[in-house]
Amino acid sequence: MVATPTKPKYDIKDINLAAQGKQRIDWAAREMPVLRQIQERFAKEKPFAGIRLTACCHVTTETAGLAIALKAGGADALLIASNPLSTQDDVAACLVADYGIPVYAKKGEDDATYHSHVQIALDHRPNIIIDDGSDVVATLIKERQHQMEDIIGTTEETTTGIVRLLAMLKDGVLTFPAMNVNDADTKHFFDNRYGTGQSTLDGIIRATNVLLAGKVAVVAGYGWCGKGVAMRARGLGANVIVTEIDPVRAIEAAMDGFRVMPMAEAAQQGDVFITVTGNKHVIRPEHFEVMKDGAMVCNSGHFDIEIDLESLGAKASEVKEVRNFTQKYTLPSGKAIVVLGEGRLINLAAAEGHPSAVMDMSFANQALACEYLVQNKGKLEPGLYNIPKELDQDIARLKLKAMGIAIDSLTPEQEEYINSWTVGT
Amino acid sequence: MVATPTKPKYDIKDINLAAQGKQRIDWAAREMPVLRQIQERFAKEKPFAGIRLTACCHVTTETAGLAIALKAGGADALLIASNPLSTQDDVAACLVADYGIPVYAKKGEDDATYHSHVQIALDHRPNIIIDDGSDVVATLIKERQHQMEDIIGTTEETTTGIVRLLAMLKDGVLTFPAMNVNDADTKHFFDNRYGTGQSTLDGIIRATNVLLAGKVAVVAGYGWCGKGVAMRARGLGANVIVTEIDPVRAIEAAMDGFRVMPMAEAAQQGDVFITVTGNKHVIRPEHFEVMKDGAMVCNSGHFDIEIDLESLGAKASEVKEVRNFTQKYTLPSGKAIVVLGEGRLINLAAAEGHPSAVMDMSFANQALACEYLVQNKGKLEPGLYNIPKELDQDIARLKLKAMGIAIDSLTPEQEEYINSWTVGT
Amino acid sequence: MVATPTKPKYDIKDINLAAQGKQRIDWAAREMPVLRQIQERFAKEKPFAGIRLTACCHVTTETAGLAIALKAGGADALLIASNPLSTQDDVAACLVADYGIPVYAKKGEDDATYHSHVQIALDHRPNIIIDDGSDVVATLIKERQHQMEDIIGTTEETTTGIVRLLAMLKDGVLTFPAMNVNDADTKHFFDNRYGTGQSTLDGIIRATNVLLAGKVAVVAGYGWCGKGVAMRARGLGANVIVTEIDPVRAIEAAMDGFRVMPMAEAAQQGDVFITVTGNKHVIRPEHFEVMKDGAMVCNSGHFDIEIDLESLGAKASEVKEVRNFTQKYTLPSGKAIVVLGEGRLINLAAAEGHPSAVMDMSFANQALACEYLVQNKGKLEPGLYNIPKELDQDIARLKLKAMGIAIDSLTPEQEEYINSWTVGT
Amino acid sequence: MVATPTKPKYDIKDINLAAQGKQRIDWAAREMPVLRQIQERFAKEKPFAGIRLTACCHVTTETAGLAIALKAGGADALLIASNPLSTQDDVAACLVADYGIPVYAKKGEDDATYHSHVQIALDHRPNIIIDDGSDVVATLIKERQHQMEDIIGTTEETTTGIVRLLAMLKDGVLTFPAMNVNDADTKHFFDNRYGTGQSTLDGIIRATNVLLAGKVAVVAGYGWCGKGVAMRARGLGANVIVTEIDPVRAIEAAMDGFRVMPMAEAAQQGDVFITVTGNKHVIRPEHFEVMKDGAMVCNSGHFDIEIDLESLGAKASEVKEVRNFTQKYTLPSGKAIVVLGEGRLINLAAAEGHPSAVMDMSFANQALACEYLVQNKGKLEPGLYNIPKELDQDIARLKLKAMGIAIDSLTPEQEEYINSWTVGT
Repeated sequence: MVATPTKPKYDIKDINLAAQGKQRIDWAAREMPVLRQIQERFAKEKPFAGIRLTACCHVTTETAGLAIALKAGGADALLIASNPLSTQDDVAACLVADYGIPVYAKKGEDDATYHSHVQIALDHRPNIIIDDGSDVVATLIKERQHQMEDIIGTTEETTTGIVRLLAMLKDGVLTFPAMNVNDADTKHFFDNRYGTGQSTLDGIIRATNVLLAGKVAVVAGYGWCGKGVAMRARGLGANVIVTEIDPVRAIEAAMDGFRVMPMAEAAQQGDVFITVTGNKHVIRPEHFEVMKDGAMVCNSGHFDIEIDLESLGAKASEVKEVRNFTQKYTLPSGKAIVVLGEGRLINLAAAEGHPSAVMDMSFANQALACEYLVQNKGKLEPGLYNIPKELDQDIARLKLKAMGIAIDSLTPEQEEYINSWTVGT
Repeated sequence: MVATPTKPKYDIKDINLAAQGKQRIDWAAREMPVLRQIQERFAKEKPFAGIRLTACCHVTTETAGLAIALKAGGADALLIASNPLSTQDDVAACLVADYGIPVYAKKGEDDATYHSHVQIALDHRPNIIIDDGSDVVATLIKERQHQMEDIIGTTEETTTGIVRLLAMLKDGVLTFPAMNVNDADTKHFFDNRYGTGQSTLDGIIRATNVLLAGKVAVVAGYGWCGKGVAMRARGLGANVIVTEIDPVRAIEAAMDGFRVMPMAEAAQQGDVFITVTGNKHVIRPEHFEVMKDGAMVCNSGHFDIEIDLESLGAKASEVKEVRNFTQKYTLPSGKAIVVLGEGRLINLAAAEGHPSAVMDMSFANQALACEYLVQNKGKLEPGLYNIPKELDQDIARLKLKAMGIAIDSLTPEQEEYINSWTVGT
Repeated sequence: MVATPTKPKYDIKDINLAAQGKQRIDWAAREMPVLRQIQERFAKEKPFAGIRLTACCHVTTETAGLAIALKAGGADALLIASNPLSTQDDVAACLVADYGIPVYAKKGEDDATYHSHVQIALDHRPNIIIDDGSDVVATLIKERQHQMEDIIGTTEETTTGIVRLLAMLKDGVLTFPAMNVNDADTKHFFDNRYGTGQSTLDGIIRATNVLLAGKVAVVAGYGWCGKGVAMRARGLGANVIVTEIDPVRAIEAAMDGFRVMPMAEAAQQGDVFITVTGNKHVIRPEHFEVMKDGAMVCNSGHFDIEIDLESLGAKASEVKEVRNFTQKYTLPSGKAIVVLGEGRLINLAAAEGHPSAVMDMSFANQALACEYLVQNKGKLEPGLYNIPKELDQDIARLKLKAMGIAIDSLTPEQEEYINSWTVGT
Repeated sequence: MVATPTKPKYDIKDINLAAQGKQRIDWAAREMPVLRQIQERFAKEKPFAGIRLTACCHVTTETAGLAIALKAGGADALLIASNPLSTQDDVAACLVADYGIPVYAKKGEDDATYHSHVQIALDHRPNIIIDDGSDVVATLIKERQHQMEDIIGTTEETTTGIVRLLAMLKDGVLTFPAMNVNDADTKHFFDNRYGTGQSTLDGIIRATNVLLAGKVAVVAGYGWCGKGVAMRARGLGANVIVTEIDPVRAIEAAMDGFRVMPMAEAAQQGDVFITVTGNKHVIRPEHFEVMKDGAMVCNSGHFDIEIDLESLGAKASEVKEVRNFTQKYTLPSGKAIVVLGEGRLINLAAAEGHPSAVMDMSFANQALACEYLVQNKGKLEPGLYNIPKELDQDIARLKLKAMGIAIDSLTPEQEEYINSWTVGT
């Protein structure tokens, strides 16, 4: 697509993986018709001409689609990995080699490398930051106040990042507009539920090849992600237990037919544990203590802090890789706890992340949110902004059309009825 | 419970049904532990001493629980039916005979009677109006501006009523506070979804005794009610088609595994049609035209206007009762359309309405919303108010406890984490 | 249909219910296209001319269809109730008044009446006995050996009856052919699973109006009936526990996502208990002992012996009707056990039995099995016979056609392939 | 386990993969407690001392477990691949290097190699043949009548093989006993349904990473495998269409809530097609013709003949690998059909075959069937034999125990009841 890109600077695993990456990116693009249409418009309208943009994302085939669309729109875009385990090295290679996009991401990179990449992301002096978990924004605020004048705004992909942005807002340190991509209907209804749902189970199966039918699966958290994971675990024949801290969600889970109980009790019954809470140490030493021999634990929440692996590691007499992405911690008692994907997002560690069909809508929101920030440069107060309802609905309409689904529209009579209170029984 | 109630004025079917009503009200109360606890507190604290209260509700065993709790709290309460078909005559009798509550409601009452009851409800000069569909409030505004000084506020039970209140607000005619009970989490998540879901299918089965497995069910609307109905129809083995006007909900339905299409197309495929849209004429002559012979249509939305029965009746060469609550309209072509419950709420017409277990939470919200209005008398601007979050959560907590379910709470470490943005990856 | 039937002898509740019965029988007939086609053929061919036939069945609108078809085929048919609680009195009235069929069945008849009806059934000197649970056949063998020369054969409807016939065969007392209707694919796959499934839950809801979502349902037995009940209980939002004695079925239940445990353990957790085992005293004093206060128990197996109500009654300090078909047994400890439908088939006691759409196939099997016995009179050794495969498939084909469903057929190439072992990989 | 195995002859991809194979075999063994117990007994009792045994199976971690158990029992066992795409090369390496078992199997081997391996399998002069699809047995009968005296019997794993054995029996060429492992309850109920169900969807997702929610999945065949695949496809959010040739199964599918229609019609609607019929050319040129652009087709039936790929290839203007195991056939019209796993068993081609937990029971049946043949050497007529009921139940009981599930057993009173016909209503 891009004729002869200048080879940019980069820090990736192996540039020779580009051809394979290209093949996979093209495949994913087939399932991303909404983003494709946006890219085509961007290519004509160049909304990002002169804009420096830093994106901190999972470096997957879908993110490639977003990066390519932004670049098509004129952005000077740079990409770093938001998670050490989620990078697809062939995708990184293709973005560098075929699209001339600087990428700093290696699957399995250590913490030091990750943090150095965050610094590079900020060295790019971005006008717009696409963030996923709010690490780049947090570093900007803590360490680079002098770059604030460059900033037009940020867009945030994930629940975890939104929680942090709200805390920043409360502390008065968020001094620019932030677009809440996560809460767009066309994002969290689909990506968090159907995307996380399928891909989490996919990750578990690829990591372990265990039969889920007849297993007890414990899902910690019944937000949109947890709902999706519980639904798919049941769909594969597991008997699902849900743990929650919110009483409303707990009743929802119970009325959806799941068992609900505290983790201390669930820990004794589960065969597979999946955390999707957005909080830390949801599974702790007291829980490992009472688990069955061979219990499997994994995480599908944003950060790798939901399972207290440090404590587990400290206790273990042996830690052994028993399959790819699968480590057996043997406790002094002889009991084993099997940890999948090192407690990082299992769908990205052991599988390929969210399927393209949902990321299509999520990244359409990202692309349009960036455009919105540019269009409203200087007009928006610092704060957290929802994606405008009409953008959200436009994305949904494009998606439906691409799925080949037609729906009804209001008749004039219905339009009138819905807007009137005088028409009675 | 009430020692020797003065027999109030009333307009009900048969006072002799009281004993049977008592038995059924007591049975329902077993599933309503939250409302029971509120009633016990009300009995001590008498928050409604000196308050005149008019409630326009479906007169069911669950509503009886609410009325009894309000009266226990000192209210001078009067009850009318919000729907001509939903009244349980034995319940009405018991409320009059055993609890001394004036009731104006008869199953099958005609429109004139219904409207005369609305007038009686307003003659009561209420301070608080519990409304279900906003008919009493609309009449108050249109015809009784002089009673406005009496009004402390209203509480509204249903989506349809909320839509009307918003229209009133836009037109500037809503001059007092209205509590949005419908949108409380502990209301619409449960009542609209699990309550409408089960009871709608229950109504269809009682009316027809047909096997749902292998039938094509068309659900019009995929809001909370529609989600519940579609889920339960599938749960009984039906193949479900969803129709929608909202593109986001349409994709949700598709990703939940349902077929989504315009009604014009669905009309040709359905065996059973269920409308839950809150709008009018969702099924129209053009749809009847193409339906299969013997297609069954019913409604579970608030008003009986979702199916255009007037047009159907005008066309029909014969209308014949073929079972209770089941009428066969024969068209000139010889094709038959079977209408259940006269197009009124099928779960109330042919079954017993929402099960007590969900109404427990809905009516706990009603009771606490009324108390909130009294406590904040004179302090609230005209407008639509959400149930305060902490009341909502309290109700959920009481419910969980009654269900015998314990859940987790945040550890201090987690509490800190969730409120901090500086703790990173 | 039948011009001026001679009024036969009968023992029913009220002949004046005939009109209502007619309306309901006609409604059911709409869902029974297969039996209708058989009836039309019978009316022309008169296969039962000169044949005396006794049917012991649940007297429902569907059985009416069978009786009418047999009579149309020339049979001198007499009908008694197979279960004291399942009789629909209006149907009995219509059969007598409008079709001239002698019926001996009253809803709620006592044991003495039931046994006197069995004697009347045998006094009819039947050539063919349609049995449901094998009571008429057992009585014939025990008390009426002198009538054996009349007997052409019997047809048996239910698992329970088949088990008894096998025991008779082992004991050498079954001296005539018995057609195993129960094990026809078009019978037990549908009637036992989808029919029992939906109607059992329907019966529970009509009896109690409780919300199933969030309840723990214990299903005893995971045969075809139990599979259907468990599937539908889950479909309505219950969390389902299965108990079994067969290890293969127990693993099936576990891999279908249900919890499996002994009744002694399940008894402590259930909110609703449903027995469908075909065995006796599946719920016993030791189980009542540990149940929760307010636990509901019911049965959907053929006989009312699955729950040991005698022991429960002996222990109870009070037994009280709290709703129709719902009795509360209060134990000395103050704990209550709620028994639905007196432990009789709940789907017939509190609801209307299997929906017509499945009985269509079951009774098509009955009708064809009777015809087969007549056609093969004198040719069949004593023993238990399966419905011939081609009859079974014919019924399925007629049903599919009536459902508007077309399917594939083998191409000649496929036909050849499936019959050859030499065509390899 | 085996101290210093003599390195046998073999034909495998790379002996250096042994360590990785060992790790994966050990992991799988964790989920195979039943086979492990059998192996322990075999190791003591040596039932196969002096027996030459040829196994033609998918060379997976689970098959490794079986081979190791047989060798532990004293068998002189040789293993070849039953399918060119299903071999796991590391497993083959480990069996050779660590267990001294001769293996002839390479992932992706061509037809000539496959057939040469079949010859080697027969050159081994087996007394017992474990077959999977009956290719070795068919070749024996066609080409090696002189080896017949060696043969004690065969065991057959799959539906396809059973169909062929029946055809051989009809043709009078099956002159030795064949154990029908496929029809053991503990085999086909679990392996075919839950195993094929999960692993087929797993294969599709690994091959494509597409989101199944919102896709239309067409499942050809509603036998045990088809039921499992349809159930899991729905469980992942797909809208499922079933095609069948058997009318009973077609009604079952409809009453399970699926759409049922001929393939000619389904072809126009599907996004993903999965064949599991055991027959050939279920998807043919006439179907490709009408498919949507981008439709994906795959097979989970035993042989790669269910999709007529030859015809598709002949028509295609281009065939291109677009992802691993994913080939795009472009038709002259420009429309693309995407073929997964070259039409071979998708769960073995793109994923890892059936999870160990189900193969545990299937291979326990294989092991015990082989032992049964040896124990009954010379006593069994030629023919097809079911696994004795008590072996089947024993396996189920061992499995349940390993799953930590206890069940009920009959009380003496129940035992008596179930065996008696005189105990009545």
